[in-house]
Amino acid sequence: MDLNCDLGEGYGVWRMGDDAAVMPFIDRANIACGFHAGDYAIMQNTVRLAKQHQVLIGAHPSYPDRHGFGRRAMSFSDDELQAMLLYQLGSLDAICRAEQVPLSYVKPHGALYNAMQVDSKLFEAVVRTLQAFNRGRAEPLALMTLAKIHRETETDIAAKYEVPLLFEAFADRRYEANGELRARNFEGAVLLDHESIVSQALAFATGQSIQSHDGTELWLAADTLCVHGDNPHALAAVKAIRENL
Amino acid sequence: MDLNCDLGEGYGVWRMGDDAAVMPFIDRANIACGFHAGDYAIMQNTVRLAKQHQVLIGAHPSYPDRHGFGRRAMSFSDDELQAMLLYQLGSLDAICRAEQVPLSYVKPHGALYNAMQVDSKLFEAVVRTLQAFNRGRAEPLALMTLAKIHRETETDIAAKYEVPLLFEAFADRRYEANGELRARNFEGAVLLDHESIVSQALAFATGQSIQSHDGTELWLAADTLCVHGDNPHALAAVKAIRENL
Amino acid sequence: MDLNCDLGEGYGVWRMGDDAAVMPFIDRANIACGFHAGDYAIMQNTVRLAKQHQVLIGAHPSYPDRHGFGRRAMSFSDDELQAMLLYQLGSLDAICRAEQVPLSYVKPHGALYNAMQVDSKLFEAVVRTLQAFNRGRAEPLALMTLAKIHRETETDIAAKYEVPLLFEAFADRRYEANGELRARNFEGAVLLDHESIVSQALAFATGQSIQSHDGTELWLAADTLCVHGDNPHALAAVKAIRENL
Amino acid sequence: MDLNCDLGEGYGVWRMGDDAAVMPFIDRANIACGFHAGDYAIMQNTVRLAKQHQVLIGAHPSYPDRHGFGRRAMSFSDDELQAMLLYQLGSLDAICRAEQVPLSYVKPHGALYNAMQVDSKLFEAVVRTLQAFNRGRAEPLALMTLAKIHRETETDIAAKYEVPLLFEAFADRRYEANGELRARNFEGAVLLDHESIVSQALAFATGQSIQSHDGTELWLAADTLCVHGDNPHALAAVKAIRENL
Repeated sequence: MDLNCDLGEGYGVWRMGDDAAVMPFIDRANIACGFHAGDYAIMQNTVRLAKQHQVLIGAHPSYPDRHGFGRRAMSFSDDELQAMLLYQLGSLDAICRAEQVPLSYVKPHGALYNAMQVDSKLFEAVVRTLQAFNRGRAEPLALMTLAKIHRETETDIAAKYEVPLLFEAFADRRYEANGELRARNFEGAVLLDHESIVSQALAFATGQSIQSHDGTELWLAADTLCVHGDNPHALAAVKAIRENL
Repeated sequence: MDLNCDLGEGYGVWRMGDDAAVMPFIDRANIACGFHAGDYAIMQNTVRLAKQHQVLIGAHPSYPDRHGFGRRAMSFSDDELQAMLLYQLGSLDAICRAEQVPLSYVKPHGALYNAMQVDSKLFEAVVRTLQAFNRGRAEPLALMTLAKIHRETETDIAAKYEVPLLFEAFADRRYEANGELRARNFEGAVLLDHESIVSQALAFATGQSIQSHDGTELWLAADTLCVHGDNPHALAAVKAIRENL
Repeated sequence: MDLNCDLGEGYGVWRMGDDAAVMPFIDRANIACGFHAGDYAIMQNTVRLAKQHQVLIGAHPSYPDRHGFGRRAMSFSDDELQAMLLYQLGSLDAICRAEQVPLSYVKPHGALYNAMQVDSKLFEAVVRTLQAFNRGRAEPLALMTLAKIHRETETDIAAKYEVPLLFEAFADRRYEANGELRARNFEGAVLLDHESIVSQALAFATGQSIQSHDGTELWLAADTLCVHGDNPHALAAVKAIRENL
Repeated sequence: MDLNCDLGEGYGVWRMGDDAAVMPFIDRANIACGFHAGDYAIMQNTVRLAKQHQVLIGAHPSYPDRHGFGRRAMSFSDDELQAMLLYQLGSLDAICRAEQVPLSYVKPHGALYNAMQVDSKLFEAVVRTLQAFNRGRAEPLALMTLAKIHRETETDIAAKYEVPLLFEAFADRRYEANGELRARNFEGAVLLDHESIVSQALAFATGQSIQSHDGTELWLAADTLCVHGDNPHALAAVKAIRENL
């Protein structure tokens, strides 16, 4: 199991999280592409930092919504969605190529990520865009998406377009018994104590069950584990997870 | 000689010029990349329109300045400039690849274009960025820049980084006797009558001299001729030039 | 009856509609405030143009959505909505005061306008914001909203906060028999022929019935009539309406 | 002497400095108006926080340059500058009026602030804009500007337009012997140790001389003292200054 983290989420003079502190402890950096956060200079710096620590680079594209940090639900045609994603993938890919490191996967951000979990047509539009982007590339970009109990829909679509999938689980989010993330507006949705975060992470990493919100055991297979780097507490958890793996 | 035109310069609901009317008469479309104009959807549409008319596609990157349409002088480090250009080139390249047409050249826009004509270090930073982008590509992107009488500086830099150059002349701008464009704030800088535009274009196309502002003859070799598509008058000139070539 | 028109809807170098051509024929100019369209310079120019033609000035505030021209549905808390509206009203008010003309009313734009027609809590939040803005002003800003058959909800809310209402009807839109606008995605929603537009406008102006989509007669009282100035056809209609009133 | 601080300089989800920690210790809050930083929601929150602590509110307008945080030199006509400032002053004024607190002064930000210190025509354009804004207001907005040894130019212009001036000095910046701020690109431009900052602040507050960069004594009268709230160190200095005054 590896650890992934959203990075490069500043804008202009503003910063979010301490990328330099987190980078040494993760395996995959999801780098914002300028639509919800990030800009060309931040992208370049984050790519260089990832390269220095031999961290895999993924694009973290979003709906065009800087003011709302990509968290607002929006609606686009498939054509618009494709153009929007290609724009962001291409921009990061060019910066990666100049630094001579590969772009290796895509993790949609925020409202787009949430919408594609419940709208299989949207999921397919994203996958189809990756197929178009992958044409002629030596290594196809993979798509990182939420680990679910029932994942046939996603795997069927991905197989059709020959796009590899990476299923991610969350170290610091509570799950419902049905395997869905507990919604953030409910109490207990986010794990706040160090011990719970580390122990849930280790369960995912070793293929053991985690405890869902109502106490029942839950088995959820995941390829990568998302950790949040925007506070010192999370960083401590990342380090502890890393040391325990 | 071929004709190039700046296209895709709308934003959101706003349009500039009549791209569909101009496209059938040109050879190269300089497509805005979202920094001074254009957005992902407009870029996609413009690439498709160019493909339909078998028009070569070039990136038209700019300083990050939508409100000022990229016409404001700005100052960046070489690193920032490289990231800014790569971001824009990559975004258009990804959209082109999905449409299965090549991106073939770059023409910087506005204040960036003007600055690199008089600042050879900036010119070199642009060329160096193209070299980085070209690495591993089958066909290198060319750089379109202003045709001058003395062009050793530009050709030496381009040769050093193995970036092909395309020198462009302007059909509808008056030249000074020294081969520079007459500045826009002077009277007579822009040719407004149909006949003068067409005749200057034909002179460039056939390698004959043009008449400079003070009446002296001027020989200026050019690979491509820039025409402006943002009014019906210019469109008429483009058609007339095309018919006469 | 008077005519109102959305104006100042350019941005930077981009223009929308021919404000100078429309202004002489209207009574109220709804001026964009920079969130969906317009910027400080365009607002200043449009205020000056309105003053010159003795046209009443209204603010045309929007959700913060320049790329989507304020047409995307968005969701905000009452507090956010109030701040968003005050920001826009204040900016236009300051420009008006410097030009020594009053700001006299507010017409919300696009998705916000549509949402407040069906969400009375949102309508109330808008009205409450106007009350806050009106405090201490000699003349209260009025709120322009859609003329309906049943308007008790709106009039009750407006009375509670002492905000005058202006009901507007549309010259170039087809109405359903129940008095609602025919949705734009249905055939026949927009009147395209000159004669129909002028005749519907005159019916509104003289208090006569109009013909709804299914042919039944419809009586709808209106204080002002919205005309669109973004094409020559509409401009011709505006002139014809003006000449016939 | 009072203390002023730049506040409300976040954007969307991004924050800068700890406004809540600084507000209890200052007298004047310079609130960003959305052009270099801040947005309607942040402005509303910052105004409420200032009201709660009975801190005077000033507008902190900027060139339109969010990505560059208003630090890029830009050039505008007097008309454009007036519209740009009025837009920002009006937006904050409307939010203040809804919260029933007065807007009391203006401190231009960044590149605009720097430019008006050396360009008296620009200084006059700013003052003239305040005159236009002040027309009909019970209390005129004052203009906060840099305390200099020779200030006749500024006081003459301000007197002509009946705009009160507030001269500010900096607690944490080193001065040259001629009374100018030592440029940031030189060594020693910023005071970094707690004791120096507090002692320079106290000298300003009590009308005593400060020590300039070359060691000579410097007398500089100031109405207000600028403190920076963007790091814990500065906050400690603010508290220490406050306790010592």
